[in-house]
Amino acid sequence: MKIAIMGFGVVGSGVGEVVTKNQENLINKCGESIEIAHILDLRDFPDSEFDCFTKDFNDILNDPEVGVVVETMGGVNPAYDFTKKLLLAGKHVVTSNKELVATHGTELLALARERNINYLFEASVGGGIPIIRPLYSCLTAGEATDVFGILNGTTNYILTQMFQCGESFENALKAAQQKGYAEADPTADVEGYDTCRKIAILAALAFGKALDYTKISTEGITKITADDVAFAEKLGYAIKLIGHSTKDGDAVYAAVFPAFVPKNSPLAGINDVFNGIIVRGNDLGEVMFYGRGAGKLPTANAVVADVVDAIKHKRVNVIIKWDAYDEKHQSQGENLAYAYYIRFSGKAPANIPGSRIVAFSDDDRKAEFAVLTEGLTKSALEDVIKSTKAAGCELMSCMRLIGE
Amino acid sequence: MKIAIMGFGVVGSGVGEVVTKNQENLINKCGESIEIAHILDLRDFPDSEFDCFTKDFNDILNDPEVGVVVETMGGVNPAYDFTKKLLLAGKHVVTSNKELVATHGTELLALARERNINYLFEASVGGGIPIIRPLYSCLTAGEATDVFGILNGTTNYILTQMFQCGESFENALKAAQQKGYAEADPTADVEGYDTCRKIAILAALAFGKALDYTKISTEGITKITADDVAFAEKLGYAIKLIGHSTKDGDAVYAAVFPAFVPKNSPLAGINDVFNGIIVRGNDLGEVMFYGRGAGKLPTANAVVADVVDAIKHKRVNVIIKWDAYDEKHQSQGENLAYAYYIRFSGKAPANIPGSRIVAFSDDDRKAEFAVLTEGLTKSALEDVIKSTKAAGCELMSCMRLIGE
Repeated sequence: MKIAIMGFGVVGSGVGEVVTKNQENLINKCGESIEIAHILDLRDFPDSEFDCFTKDFNDILNDPEVGVVVETMGGVNPAYDFTKKLLLAGKHVVTSNKELVATHGTELLALARERNINYLFEASVGGGIPIIRPLYSCLTAGEATDVFGILNGTTNYILTQMFQCGESFENALKAAQQKGYAEADPTADVEGYDTCRKIAILAALAFGKALDYTKISTEGITKITADDVAFAEKLGYAIKLIGHSTKDGDAVYAAVFPAFVPKNSPLAGINDVFNGIIVRGNDLGEVMFYGRGAGKLPTANAVVADVVDAIKHKRVNVIIKWDAYDEKHQSQGENLAYAYYIRFSGKAPANIPGSRIVAFSDDDRKAEFAVLTEGLTKSALEDVIKSTKAAGCELMSCMRLIGE
Repeated sequence: MKIAIMGFGVVGSGVGEVVTKNQENLINKCGESIEIAHILDLRDFPDSEFDCFTKDFNDILNDPEVGVVVETMGGVNPAYDFTKKLLLAGKHVVTSNKELVATHGTELLALARERNINYLFEASVGGGIPIIRPLYSCLTAGEATDVFGILNGTTNYILTQMFQCGESFENALKAAQQKGYAEADPTADVEGYDTCRKIAILAALAFGKALDYTKISTEGITKITADDVAFAEKLGYAIKLIGHSTKDGDAVYAAVFPAFVPKNSPLAGINDVFNGIIVRGNDLGEVMFYGRGAGKLPTANAVVADVVDAIKHKRVNVIIKWDAYDEKHQSQGENLAYAYYIRFSGKAPANIPGSRIVAFSDDDRKAEFAVLTEGLTKSALEDVIKSTKAAGCELMSCMRLIGE
């Protein structure tokens, strides 16, 4: 089987490496050898072991021998246009491009289905962790009720540093940049945008409905302080950036937020650049998938596993589908109740409505306290904050509890 | 699609429940409804909602409309005979029967492949946790190097009780029996036999070679004492019953043993009846699968997901294969090195060859010490024990370290 790679960056070049290194194993797994026939990239790679580079997409589109194309370009354009043309031409497409899947997945999956080929995207979420395929082919019997987890390794590394080494957010970010875990412009990671695309994909698979990710409430980790970390430790929690999605009646709610995770949840022990994704189902109970959520070779490994699956299903569409986006199907969660951690400065009033636990700062110089609440809707939460402010306190921070 | 269920015990009746409850979801997932046409069981179920019971296997074998058969009978006979006849008749078979897969998997998979149908067994390991399908369809690109984990919920519950409540093995076993987690005769669980079948299946999938499970070194948890628990706590470890398999040159080694697992390993935090399975690969790094390893509905959920997959692949064999058993391929691990925990009574000699850490009992009435060693082959381990005995010490217990 001849394949092509579009985009020879970190993941694309990793695919080249994994395919070359594991030829024998791959023949064993899919019954034929895999040959890289074209690599599309606008850059030159004079030192590469490969000699099939092209700058012209048509070399791939018009090569009748190419059956599977790997899209590791990232971004919506021109990946969207290329992917559509390839599927229309009857070529399987395998991608790690979460942005494209989150934006145009519904249409691209339908195109593949019509032509009895496949559009596969295991590598778009969780790097080397198998999560996409288990969602559509293992957890298919009962109904999923929740999917949530740590979907971004960079922010998890930063939060781990803040907890284990007492670093400030700024210093932990610098350490992540020095290690190559965070980019020079870390916005997409630390503001939760990366997690937002990923939870949109997981929600569509788990609940069968496409979401508009631009309408997913998304909060990052930049406002978390050493005081929040101290209260989390005191109360027996970790703080993790969580992508979360759940059913809300017939609709689906998704959000991204930093959350208090109890120490006895398996998510609390996931540190450094690791990811962990929990799926809850009506019959299933809770299952978790854990591993390195990024990195050249783990992610390339997931891409190549999809290539193998495409070769095994040359003329069969592996049914992956969800309903097209409909604003009625996307809940904004107004009526969903969550327990919260709220930190205030000032003297704690005798009665805080909805509070289960009140804890006081160990730092005597600070008149601060934290409240863990019962389950509250958004408006009930606002009432609690308003009444505590009315008692003379100032709101310092507020995060949901998740994983209990 | 008409299906049949053979064996209406815990898992089989769970399959009936999951199929009935999720009809709408299942139609959505596989494009057609699933109807239970026959249930084979020698017992009577006068109160069942189903009215399609039979005591005659031929009712299933000879019904041309039955395309998928669920085998939840357990044991090798008559399940083996029935499964062979069904596959020869062109019917897909889906099973939770680890004993049969571990014993005759090679032959039954080949039979299914010849007839372009499927023999699927996701539920045979890890209950509702997807682990079988990820091994053959997600982690297929690179080479696996190790697969190991907590594969038995009963023993993990017992060990959790011993750690968290300070119970003796005997009392923790009684508690597990009272909760219905352990059977009246707990031998298969506590002696590691259940884990042994499961690691044989995982090893065959991960490394592509069938093992003879009767030749897998298997040690249970009955000899673990409160002294071992105390040393584990002191040294920063949990004790878990581990099924472990790894490559040894061209051969495959598998073993079942209680092991010291460092607290920072994700396996150490897996408590109660939960299971966790780690797969390591050359490109992949480490991924872990976690969830309830048993239970009626989670396991039935995995069976029904396989039924859905069989319906999606009606005329396509989902390639799952491994080489037939060959004694050359099964290593006994003589040359593999492991680090060990060894507990002795007596006065610790000044020099213990191979030791990294020596710790002393906090119980002053006991002159006991524990040694954590470097990586040692079996014969090197024997030398260490022999030399320490020669210094007047008595060997109390010995376990491997795993997951570091």
